Amino acid sequence: MGQLSKILYPKDLRELSIGDLPPLAKELREFIIDIVSTKEGHLGASLGVVELTIALHYVFNTPNDKIIWDVGHQAYGHKILTGRKDRFYTNRQLGGISGFPKIEESEYDVFGTGHSSTSISAILGMALASSLKGEMNQHHIAVIGDASIASGMAFEGLNHAGVTNANVLIILNDNAIGIDPSVGALKKYLTNVKKGTAKEENIFECLNFDYSGPIDGHNLKALVEELQRLKDIKGPKLLHVITTKGKGLQKAEEDQVTYHAPGKFDKITGERQKGKNTNIPPKYQDVFGHSIVELAQTNENIIGITPAMPTGSSLKIMMEQIPERAIDVGIAEQHAVTLAAGMAAEGLQVFCNVYSTFLQRAYDQIIHDVAIQKLPVIFCLDRAGLVGEDGPTHHGLFDIAYLRCVPNLIIFAPMNEMELRNIMYTAQLGLDRPIAIRYPRGRGVTVNWKTPFQKITIGAANRIKKGTKLAVLSIGHIGNAAVDAIEQCTDPKKVSHYNMRFVKPLDIKTLDYIFSSFETIITIEDGCKLGGFGSAILEYANEVGFSNKIHIMGVEDEFMGHGTIEELHQLSKIDTNTITIQLNNLLHAPQPPS
Amino acid sequence: MGQLSKILYPKDLRELSIGDLPPLAKELREFIIDIVSTKEGHLGASLGVVELTIALHYVFNTPNDKIIWDVGHQAYGHKILTGRKDRFYTNRQLGGISGFPKIEESEYDVFGTGHSSTSISAILGMALASSLKGEMNQHHIAVIGDASIASGMAFEGLNHAGVTNANVLIILNDNAIGIDPSVGALKKYLTNVKKGTAKEENIFECLNFDYSGPIDGHNLKALVEELQRLKDIKGPKLLHVITTKGKGLQKAEEDQVTYHAPGKFDKITGERQKGKNTNIPPKYQDVFGHSIVELAQTNENIIGITPAMPTGSSLKIMMEQIPERAIDVGIAEQHAVTLAAGMAAEGLQVFCNVYSTFLQRAYDQIIHDVAIQKLPVIFCLDRAGLVGEDGPTHHGLFDIAYLRCVPNLIIFAPMNEMELRNIMYTAQLGLDRPIAIRYPRGRGVTVNWKTPFQKITIGAANRIKKGTKLAVLSIGHIGNAAVDAIEQCTDPKKVSHYNMRFVKPLDIKTLDYIFSSFETIITIEDGCKLGGFGSAILEYANEVGFSNKIHIMGVEDEFMGHGTIEELHQLSKIDTNTITIQLNNLLHAPQPPS
Repeated sequence: MGQLSKILYPKDLRELSIGDLPPLAKELREFIIDIVSTKEGHLGASLGVVELTIALHYVFNTPNDKIIWDVGHQAYGHKILTGRKDRFYTNRQLGGISGFPKIEESEYDVFGTGHSSTSISAILGMALASSLKGEMNQHHIAVIGDASIASGMAFEGLNHAGVTNANVLIILNDNAIGIDPSVGALKKYLTNVKKGTAKEENIFECLNFDYSGPIDGHNLKALVEELQRLKDIKGPKLLHVITTKGKGLQKAEEDQVTYHAPGKFDKITGERQKGKNTNIPPKYQDVFGHSIVELAQTNENIIGITPAMPTGSSLKIMMEQIPERAIDVGIAEQHAVTLAAGMAAEGLQVFCNVYSTFLQRAYDQIIHDVAIQKLPVIFCLDRAGLVGEDGPTHHGLFDIAYLRCVPNLIIFAPMNEMELRNIMYTAQLGLDRPIAIRYPRGRGVTVNWKTPFQKITIGAANRIKKGTKLAVLSIGHIGNAAVDAIEQCTDPKKVSHYNMRFVKPLDIKTLDYIFSSFETIITIEDGCKLGGFGSAILEYANEVGFSNKIHIMGVEDEFMGHGTIEELHQLSKIDTNTITIQLNNLLHAPQPPS
Repeated sequence: MGQLSKILYPKDLRELSIGDLPPLAKELREFIIDIVSTKEGHLGASLGVVELTIALHYVFNTPNDKIIWDVGHQAYGHKILTGRKDRFYTNRQLGGISGFPKIEESEYDVFGTGHSSTSISAILGMALASSLKGEMNQHHIAVIGDASIASGMAFEGLNHAGVTNANVLIILNDNAIGIDPSVGALKKYLTNVKKGTAKEENIFECLNFDYSGPIDGHNLKALVEELQRLKDIKGPKLLHVITTKGKGLQKAEEDQVTYHAPGKFDKITGERQKGKNTNIPPKYQDVFGHSIVELAQTNENIIGITPAMPTGSSLKIMMEQIPERAIDVGIAEQHAVTLAAGMAAEGLQVFCNVYSTFLQRAYDQIIHDVAIQKLPVIFCLDRAGLVGEDGPTHHGLFDIAYLRCVPNLIIFAPMNEMELRNIMYTAQLGLDRPIAIRYPRGRGVTVNWKTPFQKITIGAANRIKKGTKLAVLSIGHIGNAAVDAIEQCTDPKKVSHYNMRFVKPLDIKTLDYIFSSFETIITIEDGCKLGGFGSAILEYANEVGFSNKIHIMGVEDEFMGHGTIEELHQLSKIDTNTITIQLNNLLHAPQPPS
C-alpha cells in the first residue's frame, strides 16, 4: 500500500495533490475488493463511488461538512477513509463495524441509512438547522442513487428543498441500477438526459434546483473541479454523476446484480465461491419464486409485484417466465401496495412481496387501501425476523405487532416450505380478505419440498407433538428450533408442541383445549415481544378467563445489532439452546398447588 | 329544481345537451350548499369540481369507466349524481352515507379515498388489470388535487404509470390549495405553468405523460371537448385543470381555508354560525398551538413541523408568530419525520405534529430514522382515538399498538390541557430519546388551562382517586369519562383511579402496588384493544407473575364507521355509561376465594 497506508482520516487525504488521487483510488478499490472477497458484504455500490468518495472528502471539510450516503452500503470507501480502515475486516460481523453508516460509530457517519431515499430529507433538516444556528459555512451533501431518488420520499424531500435557501448539494449517483436494474419513467428520463435526447428543461430545474452534469464519476479531476465550483453556489443544487456499479472488477461490472453482494469470491478473477452441497433445503424466497410461477401457470389471474427486490424476493423467476404478470415497481412500497389494492379490486389475485422491514414503508396503505376495503391482497413478507448481518435497520421484528392490530387481516407464518406453498395455494383460490404471510431470510428444512398443493384451513393450528405437562406454541419457522429443543430437553414426553400458523385469526378451539389441558404454556416467535404473537395468546387467555402461566419467548424491547442469524438468535434468547433451558426449568419447577 | 330533479344516475345526465349542463351545474352547486350549510361537511373542494364532475360523468361511461376522487371529500357532486341525491342529507351521520367514496356504498365509488395521493396507484392497478383481462374499452380516471399530487406516493404512481401503456387519465385539479394553501417546489412550478413562465419541457412530460392544459375547470364546454378528445388517446395522460376552491359561494372563495369544512353557515350570505359560549374548554390542538409558541419564545431551538395541517394542528399560530421556525412541508409525512430527525441530530427540539392516522404514512421513518438513532424528536399525534364524522379512514385507533413495539420510544397521552402543556414543556427541556404524545380531536376539560409549566417525570403515573376494591387504569383524555363513570357507579369509594399517562415506559412501581393491592383491574383506552395499552398492562402483569383479573376496555378488532364521537364511543363501548355498567358488574361480582 502506498498512499492509502498514510491516510487515517480525511485531513490526511487533503494533504495530497490532485495527481495523487487516481493511484489512491486504485489502492482503495483494491483494499475493498481484498476484504470483501473474503469477509463478504456489499461490493458493487462501493466500488462505483470510490472516486466520488475521495473527491468529496478531499474537497469538503468533513466531518464539519456533512455527507449522507443513500443507501448506506455504498459507504465502504467512506468508512475506510474516516478512521475505520483497520477495523474494516470486521465489517458486518458481530461486534464489528456496521455495513451501513451509523451515528454511534463515527462522527463522519452523520445519519444512519439502511433503508433508501431518506437522505434528502435528513440533509435538508441538518442544513436548515445549520442556517438557523447561523453556521453558514457548513456544506450539506447527500449522495443518492438513481433507484433511490425515484422513491416517493426522495421526491418529497426535493419538493421541499426546492423552495428553501438551504445549501444542500444532492449528488445523483446514476449507475442505472439499484440492487436490480432501475425502473420507471424517471430512470427512462435520466437515460435520455445522458443520451442528450431529453428536451430543454430539466426535471430537477422544474423543482428549482441548480442542476449540473452529467459528469463522469470516475474522473477525479472533473469531480474535484465541479465540487469546488459548487461550493460557492448557494441554495439547493443537484449534481448528476454517472458511475459504473462494480467499477474496477470486471466480473462485477458485467454482472452487477450478482455482485451487489456476491459472497466470497476470488479477488483477482472475481470468480465466486460456489456452494458444493446442492442437496440442502431451499431458501424460502425460492420456494415463493417457484411456487408463484407454478400457481400462475394455471391461474391466469395471478399477479406478482415487488418493489425493487426481484432478485431478493425471487420474483425474478416469474419475471423471466411470465413477464406480463410480474412487475417490479422500483423502490416504491407505498405504490406497490395500493397498486395491488387496485388490481385486487378488479378481481385479480395479487401477490405483493415486500421484505418485512420495508413493509413499514407502506403501513398506511395496508390499513387504508387494503384492509378497510377488505381487498384480498396476498402479502408475502420475506426477511421476517432477525436477518443477520444487515443489522437493526433490516431486521423484520415488528410486523406481527404492527399488523396484528389491523382489522380484517389474516396473518400466517409457515413453519416450512410446504406450508409456505400451501398457504400461497390457499390464498390464490380466493379469500374474502387480505392475508400477510411472513417467512424468514434463509433456508427452510426440507430438501424435497415440491409436494402437491394442499389447502390450509384459515385459522387452523397444527399439533406437532403430544405431551403431558407443558405446551409449546410456536409461530413460523422458529418452530423447528422448538422441535430440536424439545428433543434435547430432559423429558420430551411431557412436552406438547403446537405449530400455531395463524397469528390472526387465532385457532380458538385449539387454544381452549390447550388452556384447559396444560398449566404452563410457552410461546415462541422470531419477532418482538411487545404486542407480538405471545401477546395475542395472552390477550385471548385473559379475555376468556384462563389464568395459565404463559412464558413468552421473543425479542426484547431493544434494537438488535448485526451478526449472523445464529448469533443474534442466541443473543435474543430464542435459539434452540435457550429454549431447551427454559423447557428444563419449567419441567423441573415446583408444581403449583392445584 | 329543474334538471337536477330528473337525474338519478349518470345515464340520465347523458341524455342532456351540452347547453343544459351549465344550468345543471348551478343547481348542483346550490344543492350542495343547501345541505352542507345545515348538515355540515366538506364544502370548498366539492364546489370547485362541480363542472368537472358533471363533465366526467357526461363524457365517460361510469360505472364501467372508473373514476377515483383524490382526496374523496371533493366527491359530493359525484355522490349526488350517482344515486345518492336523496340520501345526501345523511352525509357523515351515523348510519348515513360516508363523506368519502366508499366501495361498499355504490358501484360508482370504485375506491375509498380518505387519505390523499392514493388514486394514481389505485387507478393504475385497475387499468393494468383491465388490460390483462382484455377489456380494452374501459377508461380509468383519477382526479387529484395539486396538494395531493405533490406527495411522494403520487410521484411513485406517476413514475410507474409513465412506463406502462395503461389507459389512465390523471386529472390534476389545480386550485393551489389543499386544506391549507399548497406548498413546495412543484406548486411553484405549476404556478409558473399557469403564468406561462415555465420553460419548454413539462415535468409530467419528463415522466412520459401526454400532458394537456391548463384549461378552465369551470368551463363545461371546454371540459367536455377536452375529455372527448382524450378518450381517443392511448397511454398515460395528464390533464391540467384550473379550478377555484369554494366556487360559487363568495365567502368560500374568499376564505378557502375556513370554508374547507365551515360547519353550519347561512346558505345565502355564507356567514358562519358562531358558537356563543366562549367560556368553554379549548381544543387540544389549540393548547398545542399556543403552548408551542409560548415555549418557542424562550427556547430558540424549538421547531414546529406539520405535513399540510397548519390549521388542523393549530401550528398556524406559530407559523404566523415565528414563521422562521414553523414549517408546513405539504402532504409529505415521510419527509416531515425524517426532516425532523435531521434537525434533531443537530440538537434542535423538533415538534413534529401529525394526525395519528396520517402518522401511519411515516411508520418506517419513525423506526428507521428516529428510534434506531434515538433522536429526541417530539411527535404530537393529534386526532388520536375515534375522530367522529370522518370515519374509518381517519380514526386514530392504531397508534398505541404500532408505536408500542418500537424500542427507544416514549409514549404519553395527556388526560387534560395541563398535561399536554407540561409534557411539551418537559420534552423541549431535552430528552434522550423520542416521544410520541397522543391527544384526541376536540376539546379538553379545563377553561383556565394556561397554568405555569411543570415538569413531568418520565414514566410516572398519577393517582386520581383512592378506592378499596377495584383499580381503573386509564390512558389519556378518556380518563375523564372514567372519572364520571366512577362518580356514577353504585359504590365510588371502592374504586381507585390511576391516570397512567405513559404507555411506555410503564410506571412499574405503581403497577406493582396496584397488582398487589387490587384483585380486579380495568384498563380503559380510546384505541384498539389488540396490542394496545391494556395489552401492555397484561404483558407486564404476566411477566412479573401477577394473576389479577384484568378487564380491557378499548375498541374491538374492527373498523369503526362514521358518526359523532359520542355515538362512536357508545358503539365501541368506551363511553361513560358502559364504563359505569362495567364498574357496577365488577363491584357486585361474587368475590373470588382468597
